[in-house]
Amino acid sequence: MMEIREITLKKLDPQAFIMVQVECLRAAVGGGTAVVALSGGVDSSVVTMLGHRALGPRLTAYFIENGIMRAGEPQAIVAAFKRLGVRVELVDAKAQFFRALKGIADPEAKRNAITHTFYKTVFGPLVKKSGAKHLLQGTIYTDVEETLAGIKRQHNVLAQLGIDTKKAYGYQVLEPVIELRKTGVRMVGKTLGLPRAIYQRPPFPGPALAARVIGEVTPARVEIVRAATQIVESVLAKTRAFQCLAILHEDRVTGIRKGKREFGHQIEVRCWDSTDAVTGTPTRLPWPTLQTLAKRITTEVEGVVSVTYNIASKPPSTIEAV
Amino acid sequence: MMEIREITLKKLDPQAFIMVQVECLRAAVGGGTAVVALSGGVDSSVVTMLGHRALGPRLTAYFIENGIMRAGEPQAIVAAFKRLGVRVELVDAKAQFFRALKGIADPEAKRNAITHTFYKTVFGPLVKKSGAKHLLQGTIYTDVEETLAGIKRQHNVLAQLGIDTKKAYGYQVLEPVIELRKTGVRMVGKTLGLPRAIYQRPPFPGPALAARVIGEVTPARVEIVRAATQIVESVLAKTRAFQCLAILHEDRVTGIRKGKREFGHQIEVRCWDSTDAVTGTPTRLPWPTLQTLAKRITTEVEGVVSVTYNIASKPPSTIEAV
Repeated sequence: MMEIREITLKKLDPQAFIMVQVECLRAAVGGGTAVVALSGGVDSSVVTMLGHRALGPRLTAYFIENGIMRAGEPQAIVAAFKRLGVRVELVDAKAQFFRALKGIADPEAKRNAITHTFYKTVFGPLVKKSGAKHLLQGTIYTDVEETLAGIKRQHNVLAQLGIDTKKAYGYQVLEPVIELRKTGVRMVGKTLGLPRAIYQRPPFPGPALAARVIGEVTPARVEIVRAATQIVESVLAKTRAFQCLAILHEDRVTGIRKGKREFGHQIEVRCWDSTDAVTGTPTRLPWPTLQTLAKRITTEVEGVVSVTYNIASKPPSTIEAV
Repeated sequence: MMEIREITLKKLDPQAFIMVQVECLRAAVGGGTAVVALSGGVDSSVVTMLGHRALGPRLTAYFIENGIMRAGEPQAIVAAFKRLGVRVELVDAKAQFFRALKGIADPEAKRNAITHTFYKTVFGPLVKKSGAKHLLQGTIYTDVEETLAGIKRQHNVLAQLGIDTKKAYGYQVLEPVIELRKTGVRMVGKTLGLPRAIYQRPPFPGPALAARVIGEVTPARVEIVRAATQIVESVLAKTRAFQCLAILHEDRVTGIRKGKREFGHQIEVRCWDSTDAVTGTPTRLPWPTLQTLAKRITTEVEGVVSVTYNIASKPPSTIEAV
């Protein structure tokens, strides 16, 4: 277990960083091939571009469609990278993920199910088939820090927890941006020529919409939170908030529709003012905006009768609910 | 089953109404005695005063301490009626109610458990012991309407559902304010000389704090929502809102305290602008007030890491959550 040192923003020279990481990737992979799992987030996008620079066609990028992404996300990401000259294979693994998530309500168990489905069920066979002995991964400094502090178990932190990926999964994990925090990764992404929509993309959790579903993650429940997320992101697109999200609660609440009692769903909206996700306060959204959110979500998303807005700060709250 | 006709505000003459109801109560009870269960709400308070006027010491008023009242409520109610010359017996039935509520998460089942504990376990024996053959009850016109429409099962609507209380529980239920809606009852209360704090009291549900606990109702969970309710009612005392409430969710959410992950409780706050509870919109509370609510609840109520504010209107939401 190697000690990781942070490269602070002050010390970061994106051009030099890219050159070094490209060389390191070439050295590590040698004459072999590598794979990367592109999620469309800043971290994996930057790592994919670094890998593309270092290895060209010897890098295969996979986009794993796990069924818990936002509306239209898989297609949009694949298209964006195609425009950058990077071919991305879209792998439909929805069934595997939902099978693994079936019946699980505990957040930690969900994270574990997603991690293991990702690495073992889906990625293991893909890497084996590809013959690649190296997996590029977008772990960043904050992931390591939070996992070691016991705040949150990041899906991509393995070595730091004593998991030997070579033994466990058959390939070596390379983490070219592990010394950077999010802002540093964004700067490198910009320098690499990624589109602004990608390098400035608001944070989105590793377990994707599964992190936004309290209780069991089923296709139907993901569909509800996906529809609500689309409304929240579109209504709040023009706010300068750090991050905004919709959460589907497991708790049912009473509603009334067409004069009849309806025991329905509740969606919780969170919108954060923050610079680093370490602390955060709820954005003071104008009341007409809150009203629009509630109106649209209860009208357009089937079965939702109630909408709340989170008003607690982090700490003691966290950005995501689970 | 008698048909009930509404006395509208326009037609209501409180003095005449009181005279008529006092006469009816005297006629119905005859030379016997009656009991009333005083909850401290407007309806049962008015009925208690009507009964007191009609029957004097032949009426016994019981305050059933069911363990799901707000902080200090039982003592305050008993004291207020003592000042009006009405002796109220405080009956400690906490253990019976919590025993009946144990393990029940379904809202309808909770309501049923409370109704049956109230009428069968606690009140039946009390009435039997008292020898009274009549029970005065504060059912109002809206309760009947909502129950028959299937919107909400009110705990006190029995005859209209075909339940013969004389057969089932051994006494006859008298409902002197059943032709009135809430505003009418308040007018009668004022005319009867009740203190303003009682006749203008904001609505509070029949199942009390049990209606504010999603999932199982245990002493510990009631204690959490009771503490949150006290904060919400004190912070929002000066708003002219129709009703404000705190709800304890069953869903757990991630929080962070002293740098460590804490899987904690979430409290939902609702505050309504409404005139009749038939429709309602969330009060546009100032942000500093919302911030104070969140800060105080997460600081003062053990285990709460997250606070939301409900932003949906009724319909499709309802005033209470369950």
